[in-house]
Amino acid sequence: MKSSELFPHALKEPPKDAESINHQLLVRAGFIDQLMAGSWTLLPLGWRVVNRINQVIREEINAINGQEMLMPLMTPRSIWQETGRWQKAEEVMYQFSDDGGREYGLAFTHEEILMDLLRKRVNTYADLPIYLYHFSTKFRNEARARSGILRSREFMMKDLYSAHASEADLMDYYQKVKEAYIRIFQRLGFNCRVTEALGGVFTENYTHEFQIPSEGGEDVIFYCDQCDWGQNKEVFKGQVGQPCPKCQKGKIIQSRAIEVGNIFPLGTWFAEKMKAFFTDQNNQKRPIWFGSYGIGSTRVMGAWVEISHDDKGIIWNKTMAPFDVHLIELPGAKNALEIYQKLQEAGLEVLWDERDINAGQKLVEADLIGIPVRLVISEKTKDQIEWRLRNKEKTELLSLSEVVNRLQKES
Amino acid sequence: MKSSELFPHALKEPPKDAESINHQLLVRAGFIDQLMAGSWTLLPLGWRVVNRINQVIREEINAINGQEMLMPLMTPRSIWQETGRWQKAEEVMYQFSDDGGREYGLAFTHEEILMDLLRKRVNTYADLPIYLYHFSTKFRNEARARSGILRSREFMMKDLYSAHASEADLMDYYQKVKEAYIRIFQRLGFNCRVTEALGGVFTENYTHEFQIPSEGGEDVIFYCDQCDWGQNKEVFKGQVGQPCPKCQKGKIIQSRAIEVGNIFPLGTWFAEKMKAFFTDQNNQKRPIWFGSYGIGSTRVMGAWVEISHDDKGIIWNKTMAPFDVHLIELPGAKNALEIYQKLQEAGLEVLWDERDINAGQKLVEADLIGIPVRLVISEKTKDQIEWRLRNKEKTELLSLSEVVNRLQKES
Repeated sequence: MKSSELFPHALKEPPKDAESINHQLLVRAGFIDQLMAGSWTLLPLGWRVVNRINQVIREEINAINGQEMLMPLMTPRSIWQETGRWQKAEEVMYQFSDDGGREYGLAFTHEEILMDLLRKRVNTYADLPIYLYHFSTKFRNEARARSGILRSREFMMKDLYSAHASEADLMDYYQKVKEAYIRIFQRLGFNCRVTEALGGVFTENYTHEFQIPSEGGEDVIFYCDQCDWGQNKEVFKGQVGQPCPKCQKGKIIQSRAIEVGNIFPLGTWFAEKMKAFFTDQNNQKRPIWFGSYGIGSTRVMGAWVEISHDDKGIIWNKTMAPFDVHLIELPGAKNALEIYQKLQEAGLEVLWDERDINAGQKLVEADLIGIPVRLVISEKTKDQIEWRLRNKEKTELLSLSEVVNRLQKES
Repeated sequence: MKSSELFPHALKEPPKDAESINHQLLVRAGFIDQLMAGSWTLLPLGWRVVNRINQVIREEINAINGQEMLMPLMTPRSIWQETGRWQKAEEVMYQFSDDGGREYGLAFTHEEILMDLLRKRVNTYADLPIYLYHFSTKFRNEARARSGILRSREFMMKDLYSAHASEADLMDYYQKVKEAYIRIFQRLGFNCRVTEALGGVFTENYTHEFQIPSEGGEDVIFYCDQCDWGQNKEVFKGQVGQPCPKCQKGKIIQSRAIEVGNIFPLGTWFAEKMKAFFTDQNNQKRPIWFGSYGIGSTRVMGAWVEISHDDKGIIWNKTMAPFDVHLIELPGAKNALEIYQKLQEAGLEVLWDERDINAGQKLVEADLIGIPVRLVISEKTKDQIEWRLRNKEKTELLSLSEVVNRLQKES
C-alpha cells in the first residue's frame, strides 16, 4: 500500500488525554481512534494487526478441532435469568428494553447462548464432544474505561466453548486448550505466564489465566523465575523471594501483568441450570460438561505495544506487524515502483512511503509505526537498498535479491 | 471435515414457526439457529457461506482501493444529535443509557462515526479521497422481525464510505462502486437488478438499490426484460407492459424482490452538519463530499436460498457453498480416508459423511445441505466414484483423478 493512500496519516503529537503507552502510540501512529471513552475504531493499520493475531489464534484453535461460527450480541433477558446472571452480572452487562417492553442484554460472554444452542441440538453422547468458537465483539460496562485499548467498554475476543459427556473428557480437552494457548502466545512473541486463578461460583478447580508481565498491567502475579509455576494474587498465599513450590530451584517473584486469556472448566453448572442434557450409553439423562476459553485479541495488540516500544515508537515483531516491510523512498531514489512491485510479487506486504514530504518526517513516522524491516532508497543508495531492523541500529546496503531472500527467510 | 464432528446435525423437520423458505431450509440443514425473533447464530456451515460471500465483496472493494477496518457498535448519543438522527432514527435505533446516565445508540449505520473520524484526521485536499469499509454487525429495531434471515434485528453488513474533495470525484467513485457491486453479485451467481431509488433527505440525486427478483422478497421493482433499466416502487410512475424508456425494445415487467445492496451519494449534508471540512487548493474551507455503500451479507445468504432450492433442499453454487464437495461413504466403500485426503491435498474443502447411519438419511441430508458436487462411494462403485451435481439428475462413474480434474476446472 502507498502511504499517500493509507488512512490516516500519523499525528505529530499523542492525544493529550492519553495516559497509557498503548493509547499514546497506537493513536498517534494511526492504529486506533477513540470514539468515546472505552470505545475504539480499529483503523486500517490496527485492523491488520488484529487480523494477524486472530489468524494465529484461528490456526491453533482449528488444530484442536474448534469450529468457527458467529453468535449474536443482543440477547434476551430470559436466557440470562435461567442462570441467575441477569441479576448477578448487572454491573457489567449493558441492559435495556425496546419500546415493546422486551428486555435485552449486550453479551459480555456467551455461555448462556452456547448452552441454549446445545440443548436444542444435542441428544445423545454420540453428539459429543463439541468445540465451537467465534471472534466477536464483547461489551462490558466499565465505570472507568482506561489504559487505552486494554480496558474498553467494547472489545474483540475469541471465545471457545467445549461440551463433553464426562468430566474426564472435559479436563483432557482443557489441557489441550492450555497447550494451544501457550503455543499461540509463543507464536505471537510473548513471554506469557500461566497463573492459577479461582473459578468463582462455577467450579472448585483452579482455572488458569494467561498473563503478560508488564508495568502497564492492572493485575499482579507471582511466578517462579526458573520454571512455569505461577499464581494470581487471589490464589497466592506465599511470600515473594521464597523458593518455588514446584521446582524448588527458582525463587518466587512478583510482577504487574496484563491478562490476555483465561480458561474455565465450568463443569455441569450451566447445563444443570439450563437443562442441557444428553442421553448416555445406559440411556440415562446427564447434564453436559462444559468449558469456556477466552483470548482478548484487541487487548493482545495493546499488551504488545506496552512491552515492545522505545521512545521513538512501536516495535512490532513479524508475526503481528501490519506490514512485512516499510519501503521509504527519499529524493533521488531509483526504481522505487519496481522495488515495490518485486517485493509484493515475492508475497510480501509492503507499505511504500512515496509521499512528497520531508525525509526526516518519513523516518520519524517509520519508527513510530514500527514495521520490523525498514528499507530506505535514496540518491545515496544508488542501485542498492539500505536495510535496517526496527530493533537494531545497524544498517546494511543490499541488492534487491538479497533483500527478498532475507525477508523470505527471516527478519 | 467429518460429518460426525460437524455441529449441528440436520433436523428431520423444519422448525414449526418457520414461514419463509430460507428460515425452513437454513435452520433444518444447520446453517443458522434462532436465539430470539430476528436474532440468529451463524452456525459453522452458515459462517462458511457468509465468509465466502464476504471474501468476494472484500476482493472487489479492495480492487477499488477500499481499506478495511472495524468501527464500534455502541455509539454516543452526542454524535447522532449533531445530524438530528438521534430523534429522526429513534424508531429503528436501539437507544439506552447506563447507570451513570450516559446515553448510547446501537449502530444501524455508521455515517456519523465515519464523519467524526474524518474531521479528526483530514486537513487538506491532499488527504482526500479516502475509501474505508468494514464488515460489521448492524442493529435495527424491527417491530416485526420476519422472513427468516432476510429481516433481522441484528445482521451483518459490509459498509463502505468514501470522502472526496469535489462532487465530480464523488460521482466518479459512486460509478465505480456501482460497477464493483454489479461484479460482486455476478460472481455470487445472482441475476441482480439495479433500480433507481429516492435518497431521502440527503440527496436530490437518485440513489441505487441492488435487487434480486424473488417471490420471497418484500420489495416490488419494475425493470426492462431486455436491458438494464430498473426502478423501485417509490420512483416508478409508468405502467407495467409499456415499452422500456431506455432501450425502447423491451417491456417493463414487475417483480417482488429482495434488496441486497444500496449506494448513496450523500453530498455534503453530513459534513456540513458535523463540521467536517478540508482546506482546498485556494486555502478555502470546504465541506467533505461523502458517499455510503452497503451490502447485507447475511441477507445475501438468505436471498440465495430463496431463489435456489428445490423440494429436497438448498442448491448452492460453487462460489458460496460451505464446502466444495460432499463425499458420501456408504457401506462397502473402499479407500474413503484416502479419497478424503487426496481431495483436500488438491486444495478442496470436503465434507466427508463417514457416519454409521442409514444410507438413505445420508443422501437426504446431502440434498438438504446442497453442496454443489456429491461424490458417493459404496460397494457398488468399486474403485470408482459416483459423481453427481446437486442441480442435475445425471450420475457418472469416474476415477479419483478424473474427479479431481473436474473439480479443479469446473463444477
